[in-house]
This record gives sequence, C-alpha cells and structure tokens, in this order.
Amino acid sequence: MIETPYLLFLGDAPDMLAAKVAIGIRDWRPENAVGQIRLPNCGADLGLAEMTLQEGLDAGAKTLVIGVANRGGVISQAWKDLLIEALRMGYDLAAGLHNLLRDEGDLVAAAQTYGGTLHDVRVPTDGYPIASGVKRTGKRCLAVGTDCSVGKMYTAMAMERDMTARGMKATFRATGQTGILITGHGVPLDAVVADFMAGSIEYLSPDNDDDHWDMIEGQGSLFHVSYSGVTMALIHGGQPDALILCHEPTRKHMRGLPGYKLQSLEMLRDTALPLAQIANPACKVVGISVNTQHMTDADARAYLAEVSARMALPATDPYRYGSDLLVDALAAL
Amino acid sequence: MIETPYLLFLGDAPDMLAAKVAIGIRDWRPENAVGQIRLPNCGADLGLAEMTLQEGLDAGAKTLVIGVANRGGVISQAWKDLLIEALRMGYDLAAGLHNLLRDEGDLVAAAQTYGGTLHDVRVPTDGYPIASGVKRTGKRCLAVGTDCSVGKMYTAMAMERDMTARGMKATFRATGQTGILITGHGVPLDAVVADFMAGSIEYLSPDNDDDHWDMIEGQGSLFHVSYSGVTMALIHGGQPDALILCHEPTRKHMRGLPGYKLQSLEMLRDTALPLAQIANPACKVVGISVNTQHMTDADARAYLAEVSARMALPATDPYRYGSDLLVDALAAL
Repeated sequence: MIETPYLLFLGDAPDMLAAKVAIGIRDWRPENAVGQIRLPNCGADLGLAEMTLQEGLDAGAKTLVIGVANRGGVISQAWKDLLIEALRMGYDLAAGLHNLLRDEGDLVAAAQTYGGTLHDVRVPTDGYPIASGVKRTGKRCLAVGTDCSVGKMYTAMAMERDMTARGMKATFRATGQTGILITGHGVPLDAVVADFMAGSIEYLSPDNDDDHWDMIEGQGSLFHVSYSGVTMALIHGGQPDALILCHEPTRKHMRGLPGYKLQSLEMLRDTALPLAQIANPACKVVGISVNTQHMTDADARAYLAEVSARMALPATDPYRYGSDLLVDALAAL
Repeated sequence: MIETPYLLFLGDAPDMLAAKVAIGIRDWRPENAVGQIRLPNCGADLGLAEMTLQEGLDAGAKTLVIGVANRGGVISQAWKDLLIEALRMGYDLAAGLHNLLRDEGDLVAAAQTYGGTLHDVRVPTDGYPIASGVKRTGKRCLAVGTDCSVGKMYTAMAMERDMTARGMKATFRATGQTGILITGHGVPLDAVVADFMAGSIEYLSPDNDDDHWDMIEGQGSLFHVSYSGVTMALIHGGQPDALILCHEPTRKHMRGLPGYKLQSLEMLRDTALPLAQIANPACKVVGISVNTQHMTDADARAYLAEVSARMALPATDPYRYGSDLLVDALAAL
C-alpha cells in the first residue's frame, strides 16, 4: 500500500512518452496527485501545479512517485540528490523502474536514516497463497486480449470510472506496475513465482458485496507464447463473471513475435470462455473493446458495427467512444 | 547440473512412501545411484548396496542426495552430523526439501569450508530468458493431464526408456524437483517467476537433431485453477509436436479442489491442442495415458479399449501395460 497523495517526479524525461506512469496517475487518479516536480531539462509537462518538495509536503503529499521511465536503467546522480532530499523531508519513494530503489545504497541509507519507505512496485511485497479455487462473493470482470498491449488496462480503468459515475460499486484491481502506481496497491503479477500466480489474484480480489464489481487488470494474452501462463492464472485466479474481449485489428503480428499472426476475436472467445467457466461456470463474454487508434473515425465505426453484428456483442473503443456500451452489458448481467 | 553418480541418503524415513525421490532415482536412473546410506531407525530400504560415506566415495559417488521427504520441514540434528561429514569428505549435497539446505548456517559454513556445493532443486539457479517463440529444431512431446498427479512424469520417463531401448533419440526434460534429482538437471518450473516460465522451457529444451525427441515433464493441468498458468507456459514454451493426454478416471474431484469436478479427455484435447498449435501448428494429440491403479485388470483393459475407440487414439497405462503403444505413435509421426 503506497501512501497517497503523491507528488509526481518527472525528472529529466525527454518527452511525454517517457512520463507514461505520471500521465496515468493524472488521468485516472487525479485526486492522488498534488502536483509535479521537474528537473531543469525536463521535456514533459503534465499541466499540474509545479511544486518544490516543500510545496508538495504543504499540499499534503506523502509519497514522491517516480513517474518517468529512465533511460539505460540508471538512476542518475541528478535524480539522487532530489530523492535523498525528499526522504530527508519525510517523503516515501515509489517507482516501477527496472533497477530497484532498494538496490541503491544511498537511497537505502537515507530511507533508514529518515524512516521513509522505498516502494519498488515491480517486486511482490506480500506472501501470496496457492489458489484455493473457492468461490468468492461479489462480481468480477476481466479483460482478455488477442495480444499484449491492446488496451486491457485502459478498458478496465475506463469502465471503473464510468461505473462509479453511474453509482455502481466498482474497484480497479491493478496487476501491473503502472496500475499499482496509479492506484497505490495491487499485485505485480509478472514478478510472482509460478505456484502463487492464481493465488495472488484471489488475494487481490477477495470477497465483496454481491453488487460490487472488481475490474481486474488483464495481462498478456492466451495467444502470446511469452506470457500466456500469466493470463491463464488471471482467468482462474480471477474467477471472472464477465469477460471483455480486447483487440487491435491493424496489428500485423503478435507483439514482439514476428512469426506469430494475430488470432481472431472468435478464437479468443472460444478459448477463454471455456477456461473461465472451469473456475466460474456462470462466466459470460459480455462485450468487445477495440483499440482503433490506427483507424479513421469512419473505419473504426464501420469495424465496430461489423464485429458487433458478427459476434452478437456490444463493441466499442472506450478511449474514442466511451465505455458505456460495456458498462451497460455489465449492469444487465 | 548436479554431479553424478549419487549416494542416496534415506535418513530416518519411516517408510517407503517417504523415500519417493530415492525410489525414482533407483528406478529411472539406476546408473546414477552407487548405493544407499541410512540412519539406524530407517524404515525404508531400496535394496541397493548399503554404504558408509567412505564406501560411497570409493564407489565414485560425487553427490549425497537427500532422497527422502522430511517430516515437519526440519532438517534434524541426526541428519546434520552426517551431512556435514559428507561435505568434509568432498561430497556435494542435493535436496528438494521445503526448507533449503542453503538456509542452514552450519551446512553453508561446511560447504564453504570444504568447497562443496549445496543444490536446492526447488530453487531456480539459472537466469532464464523471456520466451522468444522462435521455432526450435528437433521434436518435443509433452504430457498434459485432466488433473495434477495423474502420471505425467511417469509417462514421459517410461516413454524415454522405451524409446532409448528401441534406438530412438530421446531425453527426459525435468520440470519438477523429483525429475531434477533423478536426472541431475532441469527447471523447477513452479518456482520460476511468471514472466520467465515459458522462456525457462525454451532454455530447457534447445535446438536438437531433427530425429531427437525431448520428453518434457508436464506439470499441473489446464483445468486445475491453482496451477493452470504453469501448464500453459509448458505448452507454449515447450512447442510440442506431440501431446499425450493423461487421465485418472476414478477421481471424484480435482486434486485438492473438492468443488471442482474432473473434466473429460475430450475437453482436454479440445482445449490443449488449439493452444499448442499457436506455438506449433503441426502439433498433434498422439495418444492417451491412463492411470488405472484403482481399477481391476479387467476394468482397466475395458476402459482403455473403450476410450481408445471413442477417441480414435492409442491408449495404455504405461505403468501396468508398458508405453509401447505411445512410442509407436511418436515413431509414426
């Protein structure tokens, strides 16, 4: 559990792309971000209040979040001075970098000296159980994709926001580093030991009110040979009542796997649903989320209409056209 | 890589059940075991030559293997004296215990003092890559089950032995602690971090001769919600050319999951094969291995005949009736 709210550290990010994590926090949990703090040569700007460390503290910030992907895996000395000063002033630090805060001797020393906590969200912190498979109360929705990086996190985040706006009970459950930094807690599933993967998702999504929806963040794809085991554990540990199928139709091959062609939405439905029904016989596929970023508006709308008719399911691009159709489908379950 | 041959330490095993690992080594790699060494109150006997540590060394043993499951997770002082003496005499130690050799200070000290190695086969020792999905040369066979503990390891071991006897090229590839201790190497897949599961199997089963078969040890089941992610990673990392379906027909529910009924062999075929064909479009289901230990001979034969006719596949219990039918099917591919 990372203490909120945050001050967002953008460091010397060369551009907005490098500030993806900070952008996610600003967009999905604006109440978690009191402002931004940047080094002189920073090329990213979130449009948040520019603050010093002291101003961040005065605004209530508890944690300085490194909201930027660093280059070359090195935490530079330019960062270090500011991070150590933050610890001295009483901040915790949180990061999802490849190289860990806890592996930096001077940060560890400062954290011990000043009583701060270093959160490396790539590393599991809890002891997870082996999955029991016992049915939990409450409802769960999981986005599964024909490939990695097709919009599964975005879909769950957008649906959570729109469900909350409608007065439905919904909680986004983070399973990756970006989601964990955005919400302050979750399971870094790709770093969990194999035997405990499904159990970590049971732990992440415990019993809840009958009318409460956990919107579990998807990972990988059953069709992506590098990460399919992670997806499988999400399907069985998550016990979803509802699956959303995610797709990016213009992709020429599976992400990072040039020899692997994309599978169809029908294949995804026919593969994921029977597997999900092992853990939850009532599970249904309720809708389709299409990432249409590489299509014109006319092409996107035509594609969504075609796929919706073909598969007899609501279909939308939640980024472009909102997630209402998908939320309607959940509400109707 | 654990140095062979071994001297098998049976400790104070109360009975043969507790000596499962040692029995596996004796049965499947008799050339790896020069003899057995026991404490006075040992209730297990492998029928191997009874040896002192010195006699084991004289017979060429390089590693003392703890071939027994300890009670209560404690390495007793009665064991310790002998293990430290073994290290002093030049042995390495190997174990698959829940509590690790490396967590015992006196064993670590003795290993450092005398230059021995402590092999905890539950713990991955190599840095595994993320799976690339690139097609490897050589052929691979994977046993998949309707449940855990239905005979997948036994099936692969028996087929490897019978293939070798026929002059076929075959290598058992261990993915669990027992298999690793038996053969001296492998990947403890259930302890590998999620992101590297499929990659660890690519690493375990590299390019090989076109007519060479890797017999990859299966783990878990696509239908067992606690471990299905591990099975998924084996299917995609293994790129099998051939699947063997494993089943134990008398089981009332999934192992350790009272609320989960057993799935059918047809469901296993229809689930596993399309997933395997993602990584290897040429993959085929070639046969069925049935664990008939709880059936009479007449019932077992009738069941095998029925299931073979129903699914148009060779079916046998390799423990009871040999694996020839399955090896024939591989040879015919």
